[in-house]
Amino acid sequence: MTTDQDTPLGDPSGQSAGQEQVVISVDAMGGDRGPEAVVAGCARTVSENAHISLLIHGDEAILKPLIARQPALAGRCTLVHADGVVTMDDKPSHVMRHGKATSMWSAISALKSGTAQAVVSCGNTGALMAVSMLQLRRMKGVNRPAIACLWPSRGPHGFSTMLDVGADIKAEAEDLLAYAIMGATYFRNGFGDALPRVGLLNVGTEDHKGRAEIKAAHELIAANQDFGRYTYVGFVEGSDIPSARVDVIVTDGFTGNIALKTGEGTARLVGDMLRESFKSSFLAMLGAGLASGALKRLSARIDPRRVNGGVFLGLNGTVVKSHGSADAMGVAAAIALAAKLAQSGYHGRMAERLVIAAKAAQDAAQDASPASAHPTTPQTPPGAAQNGETE
Amino acid sequence: MTTDQDTPLGDPSGQSAGQEQVVISVDAMGGDRGPEAVVAGCARTVSENAHISLLIHGDEAILKPLIARQPALAGRCTLVHADGVVTMDDKPSHVMRHGKATSMWSAISALKSGTAQAVVSCGNTGALMAVSMLQLRRMKGVNRPAIACLWPSRGPHGFSTMLDVGADIKAEAEDLLAYAIMGATYFRNGFGDALPRVGLLNVGTEDHKGRAEIKAAHELIAANQDFGRYTYVGFVEGSDIPSARVDVIVTDGFTGNIALKTGEGTARLVGDMLRESFKSSFLAMLGAGLASGALKRLSARIDPRRVNGGVFLGLNGTVVKSHGSADAMGVAAAIALAAKLAQSGYHGRMAERLVIAAKAAQDAAQDASPASAHPTTPQTPPGAAQNGETE
Repeated sequence: MTTDQDTPLGDPSGQSAGQEQVVISVDAMGGDRGPEAVVAGCARTVSENAHISLLIHGDEAILKPLIARQPALAGRCTLVHADGVVTMDDKPSHVMRHGKATSMWSAISALKSGTAQAVVSCGNTGALMAVSMLQLRRMKGVNRPAIACLWPSRGPHGFSTMLDVGADIKAEAEDLLAYAIMGATYFRNGFGDALPRVGLLNVGTEDHKGRAEIKAAHELIAANQDFGRYTYVGFVEGSDIPSARVDVIVTDGFTGNIALKTGEGTARLVGDMLRESFKSSFLAMLGAGLASGALKRLSARIDPRRVNGGVFLGLNGTVVKSHGSADAMGVAAAIALAAKLAQSGYHGRMAERLVIAAKAAQDAAQDASPASAHPTTPQTPPGAAQNGETE
Repeated sequence: MTTDQDTPLGDPSGQSAGQEQVVISVDAMGGDRGPEAVVAGCARTVSENAHISLLIHGDEAILKPLIARQPALAGRCTLVHADGVVTMDDKPSHVMRHGKATSMWSAISALKSGTAQAVVSCGNTGALMAVSMLQLRRMKGVNRPAIACLWPSRGPHGFSTMLDVGADIKAEAEDLLAYAIMGATYFRNGFGDALPRVGLLNVGTEDHKGRAEIKAAHELIAANQDFGRYTYVGFVEGSDIPSARVDVIVTDGFTGNIALKTGEGTARLVGDMLRESFKSSFLAMLGAGLASGALKRLSARIDPRRVNGGVFLGLNGTVVKSHGSADAMGVAAAIALAAKLAQSGYHGRMAERLVIAAKAAQDAAQDASPASAHPTTPQTPPGAAQNGETE
C-alpha cells in the first residue's frame, strides 16, 4: 500500500508505475507441474522485468539445484527454506492449524512482515485463502473476501473481470455490494477505465427474477454506484460474461466458479474440435497451414495462461493465485500481475470505499420496509475531497 | 404414455419407434422471430417426418396466410385459434391467472385432453413451466420439475445432458435426487445408453466441498444408483460438463442456467474470434476457403439449433421449450425431439422410480444422524420384476 490513488496499471504517469523495485514472495511448492515449472516461471519473470526481485519459498534441497540451473535468477532471488508442502487435497482447516512449516505459510508471512509486497502461489486455493485471511486479515467492511478472474471479452479492454470465482460458496447482499466495489476498483486500476460497468449475474435480466439475496443486492449496488465510481448495468446473464455489455460481473463464489470452469471447458472443447476438423482432410490441413499465423494469434488471444492469476480481493495485502496447472509462462504472468497490483496502490482507496459501503448496507437493512423504494444513498466518502480526486 | 419400457429413441426394434402416428401441439405465437419462423419450422418437420402431424395454436388472422404459403402443411396440420399471446416480459403468475385465452395455454390444453402427445413452444420459459404445472400437474414424487438441455461433449454419444437449467432457482437434496433419476431416464431413452453416468455439479471434486444441500444430495444420489439404473461418478466441475467423464449433470436451476448460457456465450465468442482471424490476412482467407468443408462440419457439430429444445421433466406430459431465437431449423429440431420423446414412452418407468426415490429420500431425512454413514438403500422397484426387465 504505497498510495491510495487509482492509478491505471502500467500507466507510466503514475508515481508507482515507473521502475520502482518490488519484491514478490513466491510459493514454489504448489502447482500440478511441481517446483520446476514455478522456478522456470520465476526466471522468465526476472529476465523480462528488471524491477522485480523474488523470495522463493520451499524445500532447499529441491529448489537450490533448480534455481542454480537458471542463470537469470542469479542475484535476483532469495531462497527461503520451508520443510512442509500444502497438497491439493489438504483441507484448509487442517492447513490453518498445522501448516506453519509449509512454503505457502512462509510465502504469506513475508508479505505480512513487509519483506515482500505481494504473494503468488499455484497451490490449493482453499488453503491459500484460509492462511491469507488468518495472517493478513480481512479489510474493514469485508465479511467475505473474493477471488477475481479476468475473462476474454468483446468489451473495450478485451477483458471482463468476474468475482467471486471461488473464495466462498455463498454470498449475502452486502457481500455482493462489496464485490461490486472491489471489482470496480480492481478493473479501474487494471485497465485505466474511470467508470467500469458492473453487472449482477442472474438467470434473467428482468427485475423480478432471481433469489432473494440477489434482489436485495440489486438495490444496494444500484444505490452505491456514484460513490463506488462504477455504472450499474443491472442483471446480466451467463451469455453476457464475454460480451461488450459489462466490465465487472458480480456473483457468489459457487456460481462464479462453475461459470469460470464451464467457460474454460467450452473454449477447450471448441479448440479441440477445431484441431480435429483441420486434420479431417488434405484440403483442411493445407488451409490450416496457410491460416496458421491467424490461428496462432487467435490461440494467443484466448490462451488462459496470458490472463493467469486469480486475485484475492478484500485482504490487507495482494495475493495472486496462479492456476494449478500453470507452466512457466503462466507463472510469469501471475507474478507480473502481482507486481503491477502491488505497485498500483489501489488498496487504500478500496479500503475506504468498503467501510462506507458496509455502513450503507447496514443502514439499508435496518431501514426495514421502504428499503427497495428508497435505496439508501451513502454519504460522500470523506477521502474524496481530501485527496482532491477529480475523476 | 404408451409404454413404460426404456426404449432408446429412434431404435427401430422398440414397439413405439416405428412410424406410428403422433400429434404434436405447437404454440406458434412465442419466439423472438415471430410466427413466421415457427410455421416454417412446422413445414420442415412434416416434410421430413411422415408420421408427425401438428396442431398449430395462435391468431387465425396471422397464421392462416402463413400456413397457406407452406404447401407441405396441407392436410398435415390443424389450426387452433387463440386470441392472446404470452409475451417474453409477462410474469408467470400473471399468465397463470389471466392467460387462458393465449396460444400457449391452448397448446398445453391439447396435451392435457389427449388430442396431442406433446407440446412445443418458443415462448416465455417461466410462463410455459407455470402453465404446464397448472394443467399437467407434477408427477408423484416430484417437488420441483426441471428443464434438461443437451450439450455437445466428448462423451460416447457426443452429448451430455444437464438439468435443471432454469425451471426453478433453487433445489433441495431430494430435488437433486429426482433430477438424477429423471436425467438418467431421459438420457437412457435419448441415446440408448443402459447405464448413464450421473455427476453432481460442484466447485470441486473433493467430498468436503460445497453447500449443505449438495453434500446431502451426494449421499442420496450415490445410495440410489442401482435402483435408478445409473452410475454415480460423484462431484463434477464446470469443466467436466462437455467432458467424456459424465453423461448427466445434476444441478439447481440457477447454477444450471448460468452454466448453460456461459457455455453458449463462450462458444459464440470463440466462433466470432475465429471468423475475425480468418479475415485478418489474405493467406488466412485463402486457408479458410480451403478448409471450409471441415469448418462447416465443425460449425454444424456445435450448432445450438441441432440440439434445440429444453425438455421439461417431472410433469405428466412431454413439454419441449424451443429456444426463443430458434429459426425454422431449430423449431423443426424441437418438434422432432418432442415426437421422439412422446413415442418413447419413458414417462411410465420414470414415474415409478420417482415415487420410490421420494420415499427413500424421506426415510433418509428421518433417519437423522447416521444418514451419511449408512446411506438408505431403497427397496427393489416393484415394476422391475413384473416387467421382466433385464438391463
